[in-house]
Amino acid sequence: MDFFEKTLEEKDIYKGKIIDVKVQKVKLPNGKESKREIVRHQGGVAVIAYKNEKEIFMVKQFRKPIDMEILEIPAGKIEKGEDKKICAERELEEEIGYKAKKWTYMGKVVTSPGFCDEYIYLYKAENLYKGEDGLNDEDEFIDIIEVKVDEIRELIKKGKIIDAKSICAMAMEKIY
Amino acid sequence: MDFFEKTLEEKDIYKGKIIDVKVQKVKLPNGKESKREIVRHQGGVAVIAYKNEKEIFMVKQFRKPIDMEILEIPAGKIEKGEDKKICAERELEEEIGYKAKKWTYMGKVVTSPGFCDEYIYLYKAENLYKGEDGLNDEDEFIDIIEVKVDEIRELIKKGKIIDAKSICAMAMEKIY
Repeated sequence: MDFFEKTLEEKDIYKGKIIDVKVQKVKLPNGKESKREIVRHQGGVAVIAYKNEKEIFMVKQFRKPIDMEILEIPAGKIEKGEDKKICAERELEEEIGYKAKKWTYMGKVVTSPGFCDEYIYLYKAENLYKGEDGLNDEDEFIDIIEVKVDEIRELIKKGKIIDAKSICAMAMEKIY
Repeated sequence: MDFFEKTLEEKDIYKGKIIDVKVQKVKLPNGKESKREIVRHQGGVAVIAYKNEKEIFMVKQFRKPIDMEILEIPAGKIEKGEDKKICAERELEEEIGYKAKKWTYMGKVVTSPGFCDEYIYLYKAENLYKGEDGLNDEDEFIDIIEVKVDEIRELIKKGKIIDAKSICAMAMEKIY
């Protein structure tokens, strides 16, 4: 069955640094009209980075929307026109100070398809080595944490890891 | 380490049906000021619903932000003041026409903590029986699909399931 919704009108609500917001008038499959609130996001990458066979790097970062620090795998937003793999390499080095000799693309997920077009592209990075550049974005404050692969299930079970992209990547990598 | 960001100012950008958008001026841990774009969302639920031991129900739904139909587990937005469990029961019946005798809360995930406060509460529903009410929201168009549990890994691997909340719930339920 085809449930395509045709866009009849689109209104710009907000153009920001990270997101744009639109409201669309759409034609539903039954011919009626409805409104769709849509957040546009450039998309992002997230990386399972192995320190060694038994440990991965995670970052603890304050997230203003939920007003708390959470554990996530290294991740970040794709810059306009940036290649996803280049973005993954850049974010890995910015966030934990490492480059990787071996990269594997694992797949993509959509985080909130009801109102947002954000895709996250998931990578695995192995054979890490220290990058030359300094760490971090100027305005990014993060703690780097080494997490044992065989403790991940327990961390998720106890609600210590709640970040969806991280859990998806861990599941794809079969370490959760 | 404490990376708390104090809100100095908050400006309302948009108040919608599904989302509100705010821009906050915050004080960073280094004393500098920055801007945070924040999407407020009431949160949602998602349900792994077992038809029997070997199959779960999924729904195929057109998602306007990504302009395509995707496979998701039954899910929906929490109404203002609504109990999460009640929401899960309501959405299950609205989307697939079933009630469940056995409910298990599996945990919560945050979908896009960089710019959005949406939490999804994940449930498992077993011992299903037909509800009395009709199916569906008036403006919701969905196909109900029965998916074999032992085919889930392949569906994710092939990119046929890309919805983050669904993958997280499948991982928590160990069927992925």
